[in-house]
Amino acid sequence: MSHAAPSTNRRIVLAARPLGLPRPGDFRTIDAPIPVPADGQVLIRHDWLGLAPAARLRMSGTPAFGEPMALGEVVFGQAVGEVVASRDPSLREGDAVMAIAGGWQRYSVAAAGALVRVDVRAAPASAWLGALGTSGLTAYVGLIDIGGARAGETVVVSAAAGAVGSVAGQIAKRLGCRVVGIAGGPHKALHLVETLGFDAGIDHRADGLETAVRDACPSGVDVYFDNVGGAVRDTVWPSLAPNGRVVVCGQIADYNGGGAGGPGWMALLGKRLTVRGFTLADHLHRRDAFERDMLAWYRDGSIRVVEDVHDGLESAIPAFIAMLTGGTLGKTLVRL
Amino acid sequence: MSHAAPSTNRRIVLAARPLGLPRPGDFRTIDAPIPVPADGQVLIRHDWLGLAPAARLRMSGTPAFGEPMALGEVVFGQAVGEVVASRDPSLREGDAVMAIAGGWQRYSVAAAGALVRVDVRAAPASAWLGALGTSGLTAYVGLIDIGGARAGETVVVSAAAGAVGSVAGQIAKRLGCRVVGIAGGPHKALHLVETLGFDAGIDHRADGLETAVRDACPSGVDVYFDNVGGAVRDTVWPSLAPNGRVVVCGQIADYNGGGAGGPGWMALLGKRLTVRGFTLADHLHRRDAFERDMLAWYRDGSIRVVEDVHDGLESAIPAFIAMLTGGTLGKTLVRL
Repeated sequence: MSHAAPSTNRRIVLAARPLGLPRPGDFRTIDAPIPVPADGQVLIRHDWLGLAPAARLRMSGTPAFGEPMALGEVVFGQAVGEVVASRDPSLREGDAVMAIAGGWQRYSVAAAGALVRVDVRAAPASAWLGALGTSGLTAYVGLIDIGGARAGETVVVSAAAGAVGSVAGQIAKRLGCRVVGIAGGPHKALHLVETLGFDAGIDHRADGLETAVRDACPSGVDVYFDNVGGAVRDTVWPSLAPNGRVVVCGQIADYNGGGAGGPGWMALLGKRLTVRGFTLADHLHRRDAFERDMLAWYRDGSIRVVEDVHDGLESAIPAFIAMLTGGTLGKTLVRL
Repeated sequence: MSHAAPSTNRRIVLAARPLGLPRPGDFRTIDAPIPVPADGQVLIRHDWLGLAPAARLRMSGTPAFGEPMALGEVVFGQAVGEVVASRDPSLREGDAVMAIAGGWQRYSVAAAGALVRVDVRAAPASAWLGALGTSGLTAYVGLIDIGGARAGETVVVSAAAGAVGSVAGQIAKRLGCRVVGIAGGPHKALHLVETLGFDAGIDHRADGLETAVRDACPSGVDVYFDNVGGAVRDTVWPSLAPNGRVVVCGQIADYNGGGAGGPGWMALLGKRLTVRGFTLADHLHRRDAFERDMLAWYRDGSIRVVEDVHDGLESAIPAFIAMLTGGTLGKTLVRL
């Protein structure tokens, strides 16, 4: 990619801590000087931003995943792009990298050791922010290591049309599981079956969710991969099979506030359930195995990459809000 | 033990399904003929009955642990006693055995293969119903296999003065953990420290439980061995450390009804918690390791056996009700 270099670094900063669902006024777009790398650092031109619900947690004033963002700081997020200036021998101009803390801006500077090289010949750059990146690794670790899904078992995934859910369900299919996805709206439910190859897709906005889950899982739910929490979780709960596992990967229903309640704990005992929360930071040693498996599955067509692409830095704000309300499909990306 | 053999088998049957806490009128005492063993069976004279909160669950009409008791049937419970007639070559008159389904009665008949021999030279017969029996095995599996407690970690036990809790806490001490027990009333809190050797004992009926737990666990709670559920669990929850484990062993607070609610699920994610329910039936293969360890710990004084002994079959009814309301200490036993 080649174009006239802009002279400023446009960035989106956090202007106010959101109350509930973020509003456009919680963000501000500013122009800053393009940063200059020091020894051991490189300057990266961002080509793609990856949006993730976990960023909402960092917008609150209390620690949840890592430290809260400071007001006035660039919004936290991952970026993929190209090294345009290097002061470290391990990276050269033109190298493609993923910047975990790149942020919602056109350029960032980072220590070379904090960047992940991406292979844009093996898969498009954007895929390294989604199915082949953190979203995919989260799905892989959650389903295999935390959930212990095995061939022949029934796996239910919530937010199944989202960045993590769509990959978790496809991996489960690849492993030989029966896969049931839950998503919001009839078009998403259809997408789960027709595009992603799930065994069943359920619209949680329709009536009768509990019955629909029970009917789709005649031998019960062995693994519930939960990305949303809240009412959907409580409705799946009675269908859990003995020795069932609940993977607590995301609780989007509670990110904007709330979070009390929960299903009856007696079932934990009677059905010998395991409920386990995880965050990826504890599982980064699985990246090599993940990349080997996922690239193979991507190449053989087992995993389809679904992306919801928005153009221009400023589109990050409405895209992020839409993602939190279920208005996007697959990985939500911003193309710069 | 030797005495004139009675001519009838006195037994306590379930007369009505309890609503909430059982009342004496939910039980009836009857005299039945002494049963006669068939081929492969033996007749056991019960010397001790062991009472357990899980029996309350079987008194309800819905399955929880195993099948509900039928109305008019003898109340479910374990017994230790002596073989008084044998029609199986593997057991002889005078052998000491534990009958898992002996029931609240003076005699029972069982298949020889369903009985567990107990070594009354190694430990008193009654201990095989408590610390060296199912209660102890439950504590051992819960703490070690489910909770993964390791030396140097902080373990909190609820219902810590009870049959399972008192053993779980003592095993944790033996493994090198910091052990904090929660029990109802100041005398029990003192008992945990002075008799059982816990590092701290907390009376959950006093004000300030959450502060007391936090103060007693300065580096957070690594393993919460939960025998009660309900409000005590919800109060311990905020003190769980990152990567904390909650062992869901009993939920006495919910056995008499209730069971909704629960703590906030966001912590599952933020702290990467694991919550796991278990029932002993899935873990019986651990009995050999358990008996080897526990007999050694019993002999070297690491484990003190605490028993609350009631005399006479009819005392089982008030003793059971007292146990469910926290009125007994250690294993609740009936001596016949």
